[in-house]
Amino acid sequence: MAKDKRTAFFISDGTGLTVEAIGHSLLAQFRQEHVEQVTLPYIDSTEKVGLVMQRIEHSARESGLQPIVISSIVADEIRAQLHRSSALMLDVFESYLTPLASLFGTDPAQSVNVSHGIANDSRYSERIEAVHFAMDNDDGRRVREFDRADVILVGVSRSGKTPTCLYLALQFGLRAANYPITEEDMDSTALPKILRPYRHKLFGLTIDPERLMSIRQERRANSRYASREQCEFEVRQVEQMLRRSQVPYLNATQLSVEELATRLMSQAGIERRVD
Amino acid sequence: MAKDKRTAFFISDGTGLTVEAIGHSLLAQFRQEHVEQVTLPYIDSTEKVGLVMQRIEHSARESGLQPIVISSIVADEIRAQLHRSSALMLDVFESYLTPLASLFGTDPAQSVNVSHGIANDSRYSERIEAVHFAMDNDDGRRVREFDRADVILVGVSRSGKTPTCLYLALQFGLRAANYPITEEDMDSTALPKILRPYRHKLFGLTIDPERLMSIRQERRANSRYASREQCEFEVRQVEQMLRRSQVPYLNATQLSVEELATRLMSQAGIERRVD
Repeated sequence: MAKDKRTAFFISDGTGLTVEAIGHSLLAQFRQEHVEQVTLPYIDSTEKVGLVMQRIEHSARESGLQPIVISSIVADEIRAQLHRSSALMLDVFESYLTPLASLFGTDPAQSVNVSHGIANDSRYSERIEAVHFAMDNDDGRRVREFDRADVILVGVSRSGKTPTCLYLALQFGLRAANYPITEEDMDSTALPKILRPYRHKLFGLTIDPERLMSIRQERRANSRYASREQCEFEVRQVEQMLRRSQVPYLNATQLSVEELATRLMSQAGIERRVD
Repeated sequence: MAKDKRTAFFISDGTGLTVEAIGHSLLAQFRQEHVEQVTLPYIDSTEKVGLVMQRIEHSARESGLQPIVISSIVADEIRAQLHRSSALMLDVFESYLTPLASLFGTDPAQSVNVSHGIANDSRYSERIEAVHFAMDNDDGRRVREFDRADVILVGVSRSGKTPTCLYLALQFGLRAANYPITEEDMDSTALPKILRPYRHKLFGLTIDPERLMSIRQERRANSRYASREQCEFEVRQVEQMLRRSQVPYLNATQLSVEELATRLMSQAGIERRVD
């Protein structure tokens, strides 16, 4: 906890992932590079919240700046305790439970949501099945169960296909295969034969040659694979191939894995398999 | 949009993942099984929000029940338009931008956050590197780069190691390997030789035999692998092995992949590599 540095605490009785995501996008609106960000998950007892309070007050004293707390805690008692801190409190649950309670005409359950657990059989199985499918069908390496795929990502090596497939599997339970377009596929701008029966399932990822170069340099510095000529050639060929076969595609250069996954679903009209 | 069914819309100008997660955890507090949940990402123009408004009003008319909107939209104009709908509006941005603006003494930027894009070189590279590490080091199959690992998950087959490793990589940039404890490792309750030099990096996943049976049944029905005896034996042996070697572990039965990942980090004191 640096001096003269404000701290934003993202506090949750669960994983903290949601409140952290809210925090990041809120703070990004203020270009506050000097805000230290701390995620504190599983704050689910008065003892734990007590320690958190000490950290908040310590940061306030050290920096001389009011800390920010963005929190989502279900239990009234723990939430009330946290609200006695000197931080600016942005409490996601508090803000929204009251209006929802009056809409539904019932009180909130005040229990931490565990509905996404492994115990939730079918949802879990579907995701895990999809993760194994993505791994088995990565890079056309081990198997090519294109018949069973919900989507088949194509693009040059290192255009982001693998992480996007895994994200589609983990988050949405989708069976995503991928096939790298390599130099031997580039003699013509027609689709590789093996992909032709699945044209309606294909989705392309492309990338700016400059960015591709830098990703490949990190992997194999000064190789032909990472050269400007090679990257420019491959990207140009693959884009021509995708356009010629009318395969929809996205440019991955400016997009995160989450954005790639959700944008391609919305562009290709692919529905999630799990909520 | 079914009759007599209320709809909750999760609306965002980005991926929608955050606002959907908030929505799920809020609605879970009310056990409202009959609320239809619809995520609408990339609502970033007045045209798109116009179509969304029509959907909201359609749902209100069809069901006779006031829809719920949970939204995070940065641009004032689009947000204001959405607020004219007849839904119960829970607007994450609106609630929190004003207090933050007065704390910082600056106006919000009103631009959609793209800081997690591929363009953000080092963060992206670290995540992708970690994803490839997890895939290469899955199931001790291809390589065993345990020296480079941040954590090595151990457990019986189908205890959740693979998805947890991939999640650790995608979300936190952590290099997570995994090693399945198989029958040949179970002659003794000592750690397999290959793992001994890395004891401080090990983390165990265990699972209730009943649940393991049902997961394995889906994969290989009526096999010895999926039998009650075998599942009970393997789980018992592995738990003894973990306790004997003082390897920390979690029971995966009731936990989601996100919970497994974040809990093991917090239990083992592993820090994320990317924000």
